[in-house]
Amino acid sequence: MNNFTYYNPTKIYFGRNTIKNIGREMREQGVKKALLVCGRQSIFSNGVYDQVSSSLIGWYVDFIRFSGIQPNPLLSKVEEGVRLARQEGVDAILAVGGGSVFDSAKAIAAGVAHDGPVWDFFTGQARIKSALPIFGVLTLSATGSEMNGNAVITKADEKKKWGIASRHLYPRVSIIDPTVQAWLSERDTVNGAVDILSHVFELYFDGSENVELMQEYSEAIIRCVIKNVKILLENPADYEARAQMAWAATLALNNSNAAGRRGGDWATHDMEHSISAFYDVAHGAGLAVMTPAWMRYVYREDLPTFARFAEKIFGIEKGSLEEKAEKGIEQLREFFREIGAPLSLQDLGVEYRDLEKMAENAVQDRTLGRLKPLQKEDVLAIYQLAWEQ
Amino acid sequence: MNNFTYYNPTKIYFGRNTIKNIGREMREQGVKKALLVCGRQSIFSNGVYDQVSSSLIGWYVDFIRFSGIQPNPLLSKVEEGVRLARQEGVDAILAVGGGSVFDSAKAIAAGVAHDGPVWDFFTGQARIKSALPIFGVLTLSATGSEMNGNAVITKADEKKKWGIASRHLYPRVSIIDPTVQAWLSERDTVNGAVDILSHVFELYFDGSENVELMQEYSEAIIRCVIKNVKILLENPADYEARAQMAWAATLALNNSNAAGRRGGDWATHDMEHSISAFYDVAHGAGLAVMTPAWMRYVYREDLPTFARFAEKIFGIEKGSLEEKAEKGIEQLREFFREIGAPLSLQDLGVEYRDLEKMAENAVQDRTLGRLKPLQKEDVLAIYQLAWEQ
Repeated sequence: MNNFTYYNPTKIYFGRNTIKNIGREMREQGVKKALLVCGRQSIFSNGVYDQVSSSLIGWYVDFIRFSGIQPNPLLSKVEEGVRLARQEGVDAILAVGGGSVFDSAKAIAAGVAHDGPVWDFFTGQARIKSALPIFGVLTLSATGSEMNGNAVITKADEKKKWGIASRHLYPRVSIIDPTVQAWLSERDTVNGAVDILSHVFELYFDGSENVELMQEYSEAIIRCVIKNVKILLENPADYEARAQMAWAATLALNNSNAAGRRGGDWATHDMEHSISAFYDVAHGAGLAVMTPAWMRYVYREDLPTFARFAEKIFGIEKGSLEEKAEKGIEQLREFFREIGAPLSLQDLGVEYRDLEKMAENAVQDRTLGRLKPLQKEDVLAIYQLAWEQ
Repeated sequence: MNNFTYYNPTKIYFGRNTIKNIGREMREQGVKKALLVCGRQSIFSNGVYDQVSSSLIGWYVDFIRFSGIQPNPLLSKVEEGVRLARQEGVDAILAVGGGSVFDSAKAIAAGVAHDGPVWDFFTGQARIKSALPIFGVLTLSATGSEMNGNAVITKADEKKKWGIASRHLYPRVSIIDPTVQAWLSERDTVNGAVDILSHVFELYFDGSENVELMQEYSEAIIRCVIKNVKILLENPADYEARAQMAWAATLALNNSNAAGRRGGDWATHDMEHSISAFYDVAHGAGLAVMTPAWMRYVYREDLPTFARFAEKIFGIEKGSLEEKAEKGIEQLREFFREIGAPLSLQDLGVEYRDLEKMAENAVQDRTLGRLKPLQKEDVLAIYQLAWEQ
């Protein structure tokens, strides 16, 4: 086990009819006027906006609406939010939506407290020293952004989908009411499930030693997601399945699963970010394609863990370590096929001729990953596997 | 899954050579003078006191020592601590020790901020509305007090070992350096392991429904403790085993495992508290005796969970639900025997004639437990089972 620091001060309200708490919580924390960041449509048709606004009004929290955040949220939109937040003199940011909305809200909260361009935080030219307080009402469980200090934003002109992380970006309060996710599309549900799994995989397969307890914790989350996404594809309104998925999503990336590890691999996420910087691809869809390709390329670096994965998740008990590892990866692809996730870069409409520049863009001047550090040629080879598979 | 609120703002430093952070953390949080609460001996001989005091001195945090906290910590000692804290004008409490020291520190922190007797909080006559900031350096992993808002204190003259819980009692920062636990006696190691297991059992067996993810999480902690306590009995200084046990202890009672549940059963803890109010028995020793007796008395209330426990923890796959459940309880007793835990109230020196008044004392005017609410006659019957078994 490696040394670690764990600190996660986000307060979570979880369950039915919990959205009503948002106004009181913001009021008690001294908020007078908030920027309400949201997407384009769903919260206005499924009642979430009404629940949030009546709670805010009931507790005398003024707010100004900033809507139109899209999947793969854009820097230009964040900059617009920063301007609006300043102009309106808000003292908090309230995210109402999924991961893209939370990530945008965090970037805005950091941007308002900074003199220069927000993008400075992403390039490392500036460090986040403070941020407006962030609150959230979650409507799509996937990214875990509701209980961590991370945000990923896309700078479209440079095709950079990059991240920031800071202790100042933890939401003060996040509300997770699984009932509002009953209206999600099959596609959103599947992409969410893949995103959750991918967060666990990044940690599970990072080559850490003596983290048995955390490996078992990971396996519990993986089994939970695999089981419940299938239930939700049959019955999208199954409350218990939504609730288990929602809490699994939060646990997958709230640092609890990172305790004692090496920090995660994250090459798959980096490779996916380069895909969705070039193509309008949902993060979860990109991950469904890249995960098995990455696994096929690196599994020999840690056969015991890949074999263990096959055994603990898919019950594969026979064969050599290598055979088990290979069967596990195949079973994961089979599961992705079963839930209707895309299986190759071709399925996503990616052109073969773009692979090289995507690899260039993904690597920049770094190597990717921790289990096996990847150079540009490795990344290109993995994209090729993902294209052909 | 039930609705829940999760909020745990304790910052944890975990690992080798982490005690040195205590002075900086306290300084950064504005502490000028702390009451350093500790036990009688061990921290002065194993180097912990030296590490703590040099960190405090290095960061210009003044402190006054309040030593002599015992297992089953006493109200009279807490009251003495409150007087000393006031007299010295300290602005924080620093616990350096195990669960008894942390619990005493919490009660002192609450007591200093209260006009009346500290015991008012335990009887419910007063509510904790504030407390001095609490910091901690843990030297014995068992109670989980390092990352929760709970404390249990004994009022000796009335034989009451009662608890308090408040959001104001979460330590701001707790430091867990497993290396300092290498010197623990076999008995302390075993009692700690039993205490950790018991916390998980109280939650696991509370009759909650649709908490599969949390049940798997519980099983991961249980397997971790069973495996690592055996390693530690062979080699008390095995760092990785100490580290896994230490983190398991924290997770077992930091509320993460309570998410979506009914709140836990806690009858076993209540029954144990009445034993150690009458006899000078270590909490873990009392729990090792009471746990199987409670299980034998109540398991028919939830055969599927007791059978699942047998299967997931001890690999018992054959037989009816009832047979599996019974074998699981028997295996648990076998495990307690193997690690040298006491097996009956007789082993603890409890007199049969005291069982009745212990039952009276345990129940007071309530019923105990949630899976099966227990009246005084039930508690007496369980004590009798525990005495004879």
